[in-house]
Amino acid sequence: MTNQDILQIIENRKSTRAFLNKEVSVGQLEQLMRVTTRAPSWKNAQSYKVYFITGAKKQELVEEFYQAAVVDKLEPQPVYAYEKNHPSFIKKRMFALGMDLYSHMGIDRKDKLGREDHFKKNFRGFDAPVMAFFYIPAPLGEWSLLDLGILLGHICLVAESMGLATCAQASLAIYPQIVAKYTKQNESMKMILGMALGYADPQDKNNSFRSERAPLEEVMEVI
Amino acid sequence: MTNQDILQIIENRKSTRAFLNKEVSVGQLEQLMRVTTRAPSWKNAQSYKVYFITGAKKQELVEEFYQAAVVDKLEPQPVYAYEKNHPSFIKKRMFALGMDLYSHMGIDRKDKLGREDHFKKNFRGFDAPVMAFFYIPAPLGEWSLLDLGILLGHICLVAESMGLATCAQASLAIYPQIVAKYTKQNESMKMILGMALGYADPQDKNNSFRSERAPLEEVMEVI
Repeated sequence: MTNQDILQIIENRKSTRAFLNKEVSVGQLEQLMRVTTRAPSWKNAQSYKVYFITGAKKQELVEEFYQAAVVDKLEPQPVYAYEKNHPSFIKKRMFALGMDLYSHMGIDRKDKLGREDHFKKNFRGFDAPVMAFFYIPAPLGEWSLLDLGILLGHICLVAESMGLATCAQASLAIYPQIVAKYTKQNESMKMILGMALGYADPQDKNNSFRSERAPLEEVMEVI
Repeated sequence: MTNQDILQIIENRKSTRAFLNKEVSVGQLEQLMRVTTRAPSWKNAQSYKVYFITGAKKQELVEEFYQAAVVDKLEPQPVYAYEKNHPSFIKKRMFALGMDLYSHMGIDRKDKLGREDHFKKNFRGFDAPVMAFFYIPAPLGEWSLLDLGILLGHICLVAESMGLATCAQASLAIYPQIVAKYTKQNESMKMILGMALGYADPQDKNNSFRSERAPLEEVMEVI
């Protein structure tokens, strides 16, 4: 563990989009889960299962996933369709993120190809050494997603405290059938999203980007 | 802030079911949100809004909520119905939590009235000085619940680091129409769950309970 101060951890954590070619050990992944499964859940149900794909299998999965998304352009089949009906005050935040990120990367807003090239890296899990996939039981839904989110929050922070970097990725949700070949999960569980996990590349420009946040008054009220 | 070590925070945090009669300031709530809204969300959408009800208004809300749940026994109308189709390996965990908690409290498993009396405190938010209610935009669903969960995970931990205690409560989800009277939220946002927030009562037996967790091999696999 390299940094234990929670405020510093939260301040340092970011969605990391470039990783070093440096393995994460099974022991580290177990430590990560040992700590984070203390997260609360509905009646302590812990209705999730996390698969960490590493090494040669990870490489195989990345190639298959990338081929499907970028070359074959297979129809996305996420368990939960991407949401599109965001109210305008929220669309504004999403739009700003895109503008800020591409501007930081020096990609012109009109450079469609440049933006696409940048975005494609999502489908390789940014070449992180570990790809994590998060499942919940097939008969469950919203309440389990909340619990899964609480776990994800813990994972992002504890990973950071271990010197590891993460990027939770909805873009890895689009081909559950490909992922299932590697996790060997049957239809009793459904795959919700993925996460890139590893050591951040400190040299990569992606990793000096810092996203904005909405003003407090937009997201909270004390009565 | 009283404790900054994230591992210690995670270890210490628990769902707190008894609180001191000691106010939390607006400044503390703002600090809590200022830090936790650094949590990642779908394209930085931050598609949530948190209402903190305090003081006399909180007291009024508690009485109305408790009356509805315990005296008038109004039909629960949560935005998302409680889930019931948990697979048996998960039901086992939920059952164990109930057994362990009531056993810790010295309430016999056959003492239906005793268990009910204990459970009713949920509908008073355990008389915490603050009740928080979490909303997402009405047109959104699963992906926003994941993001809300990530925020909740951060809130539990940062509150603990500030010397505050929390209990995320699905039981406060059952009457969105009552809560809306206090938050003045209209139908553009929907209320997902509540949270009790305040200072833990160190003397109360509820707060020396520690819940178990599933063995790692049930919740993770490295491939």
